[in-house]
Amino acid sequence: MAERIGRQTLRLTEDVHVGAYAAAGGKKEGEGPLGGGFDLISEDAWFGQDSWEKAETAMLRGCLGACLAKWDVPTRRPELLLGGDLLNQCISSAYAVRECAEPYLGLYGACSTMAEGLMLAALLVDGGGFASACALTGSHFCTAERQYRFPLEYGGQRTPTAQWTVTGAGAAVLEKGGGTLRVTHVTPGRIVDAGVTDACNMGAAMAPAAFDTITAHFRDTGRDFGDYDAVFTGDLGAIGHDILQDLLQKDGRSPGLRYMDCGVLLYDLKTQDVHAGGSGCGCSAAVLCAHILPAMERGVWRRVLFAGTGALMSPLSVQQGCSIPGICHAVAIERED
Amino acid sequence: MAERIGRQTLRLTEDVHVGAYAAAGGKKEGEGPLGGGFDLISEDAWFGQDSWEKAETAMLRGCLGACLAKWDVPTRRPELLLGGDLLNQCISSAYAVRECAEPYLGLYGACSTMAEGLMLAALLVDGGGFASACALTGSHFCTAERQYRFPLEYGGQRTPTAQWTVTGAGAAVLEKGGGTLRVTHVTPGRIVDAGVTDACNMGAAMAPAAFDTITAHFRDTGRDFGDYDAVFTGDLGAIGHDILQDLLQKDGRSPGLRYMDCGVLLYDLKTQDVHAGGSGCGCSAAVLCAHILPAMERGVWRRVLFAGTGALMSPLSVQQGCSIPGICHAVAIERED
Repeated sequence: MAERIGRQTLRLTEDVHVGAYAAAGGKKEGEGPLGGGFDLISEDAWFGQDSWEKAETAMLRGCLGACLAKWDVPTRRPELLLGGDLLNQCISSAYAVRECAEPYLGLYGACSTMAEGLMLAALLVDGGGFASACALTGSHFCTAERQYRFPLEYGGQRTPTAQWTVTGAGAAVLEKGGGTLRVTHVTPGRIVDAGVTDACNMGAAMAPAAFDTITAHFRDTGRDFGDYDAVFTGDLGAIGHDILQDLLQKDGRSPGLRYMDCGVLLYDLKTQDVHAGGSGCGCSAAVLCAHILPAMERGVWRRVLFAGTGALMSPLSVQQGCSIPGICHAVAIERED
Repeated sequence: MAERIGRQTLRLTEDVHVGAYAAAGGKKEGEGPLGGGFDLISEDAWFGQDSWEKAETAMLRGCLGACLAKWDVPTRRPELLLGGDLLNQCISSAYAVRECAEPYLGLYGACSTMAEGLMLAALLVDGGGFASACALTGSHFCTAERQYRFPLEYGGQRTPTAQWTVTGAGAAVLEKGGGTLRVTHVTPGRIVDAGVTDACNMGAAMAPAAFDTITAHFRDTGRDFGDYDAVFTGDLGAIGHDILQDLLQKDGRSPGLRYMDCGVLLYDLKTQDVHAGGSGCGCSAAVLCAHILPAMERGVWRRVLFAGTGALMSPLSVQQGCSIPGICHAVAIERED
């Protein structure tokens, strides 16, 4: 049963391990620097479907299937599914698990959904009576563009601060005992609204929330960047990454090369024309499952802080002049030998 | 720390009580049969704001404030907030708690969000390291009509099977010990899709999910309708209520007058022109906090099963010909003397 430490952090007291994980992605994601880590890559944006929403659903379903097939017994099922996505009413995740016989909890954490799902899965396996739980999320460039911005057919110009919604997904099963990678702490985030109203600069809107949660995690645990081999934010992109580094340095911290952003890592920012980098639920989910967890298994990093970031706005709230609230949830993962 | 019983149910092992609760509603809800139970009623649909989305946000903020003001120490704050709503990207709940200093977890369970939030709050207080957690949700007729169906200005006709989205909200704090009403069991639901494609007949789409979760709860706990003083579904409305009764009777069960639906109770179906009854996140949330919990405190019922129901679809998924998946989460609440 989780133990509260400090104002905002929970320390898990049971052995909660990553049992299995998988990442799925589109063609562009497969061509990026992390392409080799994906379990499933589509040759186009369609994933064999006739609408982009159905394609997103198929991608999520495929990602969940790939994850469960890699679990210790490939026919085993998790006791609980936690999912969410960016589509209105979170349809792609709900439709993706529609045929599953397990209980399902729908989440909305915008691009922080993977961290929120992992955190809840960890707490519910630790003390909530579940032996295992699976967190699943993803996003699709084509569904996000037409829902949040313009239909692709318009050929709209993008600002340099804009990010590219990742066509990708991640799924991870947490279970009691039995693995190399253990979830040790979670720090749920509070909403931080820095007053940013530019929906084409999400990195700036989310960076203050990332600062709030990461420093809360450090305050509660007595740790700092030196105690982690790597600290990842979800999808601040190049601009948000620099803003967060500034905020941390002004706070007297030295993140150095230990701090990285999933949105910066997933694409080659020089050649792949994604402006400030990747974003979307699929960004941190895919980087976690295609890059971070595999690298931890290989021993590259022993202790990692995964800090998923989200912007809790809608096109309508931006049209009504509301500023963009950010949130960030952090999950500490440690390699055990 | 919660104990799993049967395939799908968790029994709480700690004393998790309802610490405080409140309901907010619009004019129509105040004029209905449960109007006297609301803590906060707006004289119009605007709640003092200049857009319906902002009105929904203000209603949720007011409801949370009214709830916390009724807690044992009115300046006390819950350690965690759980919220969600029907608007695209769940903006009304996120904006409602934007100024709160507590961690926030966004949920999407469609109209089952109150049950999902209560369930997670109960599990996280029981074994997740939190001493208290507050579940908050609501809906607004005017925001829902224009988002899901037509702008009100069109004056569109409604089918007899259609339900009326409740302008209402509910908030409830769960805490360790210290109250009369204890949460004893939770049964998270799985998705059930009966193939209904008529978005104007949500009751039919959700009734099979309610049947699935309620019978799973009975199977896991060894209970039946006779063990509860009252069993409430969230918002099946008059048509879904009758379908569920049929399904239960065919299963050899006798729900009788013990089974009620929040969407049937909230309005006077004969005079208030709401067709098949109320719906929306605010429906079960407001009925729980304006009617069920107060009646339990007065001793009318000692043991209640609150089974929130949701339809996990979007206007877009319906336009693309997809059927409407339903879900239902159940929470057992018991009066202790």
